[in-house]
Amino acid sequence: MRAVRVHEYHSDPKIDDIPEPMISGPLDVIVKIGGAGVCRTDLHILEGQWAEAMGPQLPYVIGHENAGWVHEVGAGVTNVAVGDTVILHPQPSCGLCRACRAGKDMQCTNAFFPGLSNDDGGMAEYLRTTARACVKLNPDTNPADVAALADAGITAYHAVRKAVPLLYPGTTAVVQGAGGLGHIGIQCLAALTATKIVVVDKNPDALALAKQIGADETVQVDGNHVAAVKDLTGGEGANVVFDFVAEQGAENDAWAMTGPDGYQFVIGYGGEVRIPTLDFVAGEKNIIGNIVGTYNDLAELMVLAQAGKVTLHTKQYPLESALDALHDLDAGRVRGRAILVP
Amino acid sequence: MRAVRVHEYHSDPKIDDIPEPMISGPLDVIVKIGGAGVCRTDLHILEGQWAEAMGPQLPYVIGHENAGWVHEVGAGVTNVAVGDTVILHPQPSCGLCRACRAGKDMQCTNAFFPGLSNDDGGMAEYLRTTARACVKLNPDTNPADVAALADAGITAYHAVRKAVPLLYPGTTAVVQGAGGLGHIGIQCLAALTATKIVVVDKNPDALALAKQIGADETVQVDGNHVAAVKDLTGGEGANVVFDFVAEQGAENDAWAMTGPDGYQFVIGYGGEVRIPTLDFVAGEKNIIGNIVGTYNDLAELMVLAQAGKVTLHTKQYPLESALDALHDLDAGRVRGRAILVP
Amino acid sequence: MRAVRVHEYHSDPKIDDIPEPMISGPLDVIVKIGGAGVCRTDLHILEGQWAEAMGPQLPYVIGHENAGWVHEVGAGVTNVAVGDTVILHPQPSCGLCRACRAGKDMQCTNAFFPGLSNDDGGMAEYLRTTARACVKLNPDTNPADVAALADAGITAYHAVRKAVPLLYPGTTAVVQGAGGLGHIGIQCLAALTATKIVVVDKNPDALALAKQIGADETVQVDGNHVAAVKDLTGGEGANVVFDFVAEQGAENDAWAMTGPDGYQFVIGYGGEVRIPTLDFVAGEKNIIGNIVGTYNDLAELMVLAQAGKVTLHTKQYPLESALDALHDLDAGRVRGRAILVP
Amino acid sequence: MRAVRVHEYHSDPKIDDIPEPMISGPLDVIVKIGGAGVCRTDLHILEGQWAEAMGPQLPYVIGHENAGWVHEVGAGVTNVAVGDTVILHPQPSCGLCRACRAGKDMQCTNAFFPGLSNDDGGMAEYLRTTARACVKLNPDTNPADVAALADAGITAYHAVRKAVPLLYPGTTAVVQGAGGLGHIGIQCLAALTATKIVVVDKNPDALALAKQIGADETVQVDGNHVAAVKDLTGGEGANVVFDFVAEQGAENDAWAMTGPDGYQFVIGYGGEVRIPTLDFVAGEKNIIGNIVGTYNDLAELMVLAQAGKVTLHTKQYPLESALDALHDLDAGRVRGRAILVP
Repeated sequence: MRAVRVHEYHSDPKIDDIPEPMISGPLDVIVKIGGAGVCRTDLHILEGQWAEAMGPQLPYVIGHENAGWVHEVGAGVTNVAVGDTVILHPQPSCGLCRACRAGKDMQCTNAFFPGLSNDDGGMAEYLRTTARACVKLNPDTNPADVAALADAGITAYHAVRKAVPLLYPGTTAVVQGAGGLGHIGIQCLAALTATKIVVVDKNPDALALAKQIGADETVQVDGNHVAAVKDLTGGEGANVVFDFVAEQGAENDAWAMTGPDGYQFVIGYGGEVRIPTLDFVAGEKNIIGNIVGTYNDLAELMVLAQAGKVTLHTKQYPLESALDALHDLDAGRVRGRAILVP
Repeated sequence: MRAVRVHEYHSDPKIDDIPEPMISGPLDVIVKIGGAGVCRTDLHILEGQWAEAMGPQLPYVIGHENAGWVHEVGAGVTNVAVGDTVILHPQPSCGLCRACRAGKDMQCTNAFFPGLSNDDGGMAEYLRTTARACVKLNPDTNPADVAALADAGITAYHAVRKAVPLLYPGTTAVVQGAGGLGHIGIQCLAALTATKIVVVDKNPDALALAKQIGADETVQVDGNHVAAVKDLTGGEGANVVFDFVAEQGAENDAWAMTGPDGYQFVIGYGGEVRIPTLDFVAGEKNIIGNIVGTYNDLAELMVLAQAGKVTLHTKQYPLESALDALHDLDAGRVRGRAILVP
Repeated sequence: MRAVRVHEYHSDPKIDDIPEPMISGPLDVIVKIGGAGVCRTDLHILEGQWAEAMGPQLPYVIGHENAGWVHEVGAGVTNVAVGDTVILHPQPSCGLCRACRAGKDMQCTNAFFPGLSNDDGGMAEYLRTTARACVKLNPDTNPADVAALADAGITAYHAVRKAVPLLYPGTTAVVQGAGGLGHIGIQCLAALTATKIVVVDKNPDALALAKQIGADETVQVDGNHVAAVKDLTGGEGANVVFDFVAEQGAENDAWAMTGPDGYQFVIGYGGEVRIPTLDFVAGEKNIIGNIVGTYNDLAELMVLAQAGKVTLHTKQYPLESALDALHDLDAGRVRGRAILVP
Repeated sequence: MRAVRVHEYHSDPKIDDIPEPMISGPLDVIVKIGGAGVCRTDLHILEGQWAEAMGPQLPYVIGHENAGWVHEVGAGVTNVAVGDTVILHPQPSCGLCRACRAGKDMQCTNAFFPGLSNDDGGMAEYLRTTARACVKLNPDTNPADVAALADAGITAYHAVRKAVPLLYPGTTAVVQGAGGLGHIGIQCLAALTATKIVVVDKNPDALALAKQIGADETVQVDGNHVAAVKDLTGGEGANVVFDFVAEQGAENDAWAMTGPDGYQFVIGYGGEVRIPTLDFVAGEKNIIGNIVGTYNDLAELMVLAQAGKVTLHTKQYPLESALDALHDLDAGRVRGRAILVP
């Protein structure tokens, strides 16, 4: 089959012809890929940023945002059958450790992450995953239309879902960064809460779009944006700040926008927070980490998507044009999400 | 192997010589039984009370409260190995449905219940269960010492665990019924909360024991016991009433003992609650159902047991004396829990 | 001033000329009534149903659903000033007991309930309440437009608000009874969750309206309605059933519509639940009582109302026509809520 | 009356003869002081560290950890009467803002803090506070025995109470800093949870005492202490780290000791956390701020204290010896808490 493989860091991946993946355990599932999202993390992989942490043996196939159809199942698989349309949780988990048993899939102590860890990903015709990663979809769903929800979507949803109890009517939520994830986060907030949604971004177009999909107020990043957010929250700061940027100073802006008894949700990464411990104490303020989401998060998000409450712009590329997709993403030429279709 | 099998309802089971169970799926585990608890539910099975609901094909092996050593594992089992000492969650679950994914093992839509559903139980030398039912123990644990925690223990623990957020210092919890489950419930309350524990029972010996293991106050059932409980709670009623009896009027006593904004936890069964809807409204009172517990509940309870915070009296019988154990239980001659040891 | 007073049970109240209420304590507030809702409970008061429980000394002024303008304040009042537009929590609370300190206003051990307890209500030109009952509104709000939210609204909102964590995407909520409260409950559910909303009522007009304000499905009460609800929930029953009826058998229908691990919220009253304790255990099902709501609930609901997310039909009557309003309500001639305007 | 007043920063306070405080509002309460704790914050006040943030007009009376007897009450006070024994929440709150209505007393937008804000504190014969700060005690309680719970105690209890749902059996909690607050924190953890308690401190005597009052393990700060804590938690880090130090690098040790999905509770202050946002994401780790506690926290802590579950060492000084007490504290000569007794 054709597959997009990294051969060495700091250079373009290649489209190789390699053997199809095979069932290696009773819970394995082989999925015929219908759509594979192209993510900024893929660029970071190519830059070698994940080499040390994940240590994949090169060459390997990238692509961690996948949907398609079940092609083959192991002997112990009971939740999906050949032919089912599925979207894939990016991190197959064991189902046996305490974390899995508590519904915390990302904290599974025996998981792998195809396309990131030392396991082939989904920019290919077929992918090996496991039963526990498969969310069954309506048969008429086009995998390419939803693939981007498998990673970008679940991550935004997970953070919003955790914050729902904090966002009763009368509160304010700030979304910092109205790109791919923020875009979905805004729609999730509008679907799940009646909080006032304030969106902060550099890009006026992104803010205009934010208004259309649920933002109550928008604030352009211009040096006075922290003050502007405070003005919109009675001088106090927001109840929850979702920081989808979390680098280049945004992470400290996020803290400054967070009001007393408030919560900064870190979702993006790259920067460093520097906060006096007194600030946590005086305002009884909090910082909450977030990583991807649970299987049930993904299943719930698919309910929102199938009800039309969360939509996302995608631009499809044939698998052969994977390099174009990666280059377009790198050059800022992709609106929404690039999706490879084998 | 030898096994205690029900051949017809309303008569004693027989000790038969039958083939050992075999691995039938990749997640199956065969356990060599080290101890199998004898439960009042076993008497109810023999009386045919579960015939319709569970529909097991006779003859079949009873015994749903089991611990022992792993004897053989299926190809997909990764959490336990041959020789491991284990206690078994009574209901093997699928790990794939939404409930399993949310940590709600008892709501699994694909579970079975050996010894109760149409699957052989643990009053035998070997039992077939699955990887998801196995809680690994310290290798030096004697399975016969802990087996009773697999059903009686987990059930009491689960209810108490759910109530912990309600039972801050200054509250009162009532334990109605200080038998096998109530006994463990009292110890769990003492280990996990600083609530005032009031124990209600007919039996003065049970109340005396309750005092030794954590009860702050005891009330004998004598017709004035509801009033006595109210007196101990400033006239208002308790914050939480754990009803381990839930029949013969106790279920309505439990409601009467529950104060405004309070919770009646139903754990026993057999009776019927009759309550005007106005009573739920006026006092903003609640009733919470409880069934067995989660895998993580069982694992947590084993932590308490291994720390000596929860202990239980057991009386061991050889497997051959299973009928004696059942008759003793029926006649009220068992103090604590009868355990069969093959 | 003019006031609607009950002189004896089982006969019409009278419109009397009585002295205006006076400040009697430092936290007292005198409110000039702008709108007073006419509630079914007022009919029940006239029927003597609350005589024993509340024991008001006759004659007294009824009316417990009030909004208006602050007319005079006691020496210790700091949160509102003369002239402020306010809606009133129906039960002024002490602010000093444990319940008040935990935000549970309805469990205040020192509260009173003007128009229901032995304290004059709001079907009059002026009402005495306290600082802790006053929710300040935008000055341009017309009290008569929002008065019905002070009791009907807060009650529906409170129940929905408590259920939000249970109603993630993919769940189903049943609203039984699409009258005044149910009507608001549907809008609150649509504003605060993405659950599937199924509305059950006898009245086809009420169901048609329900569809317009957020119901995803409607089911007419026809004897097969429980089965119809089960069909809409995959045969299992709903996650949460809000029972705004809770009499004449509806309370037991509500239980039957509630799925495993589900919750029956009792909001209406008049009937009696009869449930085997085994049913609570087998399905791990629950019943949750609900009474009115907290001060913060009312404040949050006003945010929804001012954002146009919760609206209600009202029909205004001059205070002099109070008897017409009561008779119209009794005869089923009021669409939405009757409001008296002094 | 005699009172300890700050006249200028960076010099000793003086014991002056000043007029007794007077009732100025209907909810005011004058308390005859029975015991006033001497806190490290008092030293910081004298060093001028709070001058800017609080801006008290000098001279003023310090002392924010107070208990005594009600001496006089305003016209609107209903919860306490002259002669009652009381312990005082350090920050009288309004009872009318949203935070107060939600039980979040420390977030009250209209509070004051006698002895810290521009209001005379309790190192005196009498103190003015309000009804909402008074927790009534058993009449036979000696105020000097419990005064230290009014600030040190409530602060430790509040943090532990918030963490209870995270600390089920099988978890590990680290207490960093076994001084006055940590000492109480350890006892609260032992009373409210069955978590494994690991105590980290420089001082071997403090660690020896920690063992006696509930620590399961102790770790001396020696440069390898982070690694030692990781070893005690299976290499992963703790579920919750209570950082009562939060300065001089301890705040970053606390983060390093916190495991995946874990929580760092900041209670002490003085340092600065510096954490890459990636660390919050990768481990889904969190930081929780904590300040003092709620009125109900203090009431609950008094239940534990009166049950003997929380005790603390105190050393009493006559009010005249206030300077000795302050100097002893500064010089590290106070074991437990110094209490001034007028």
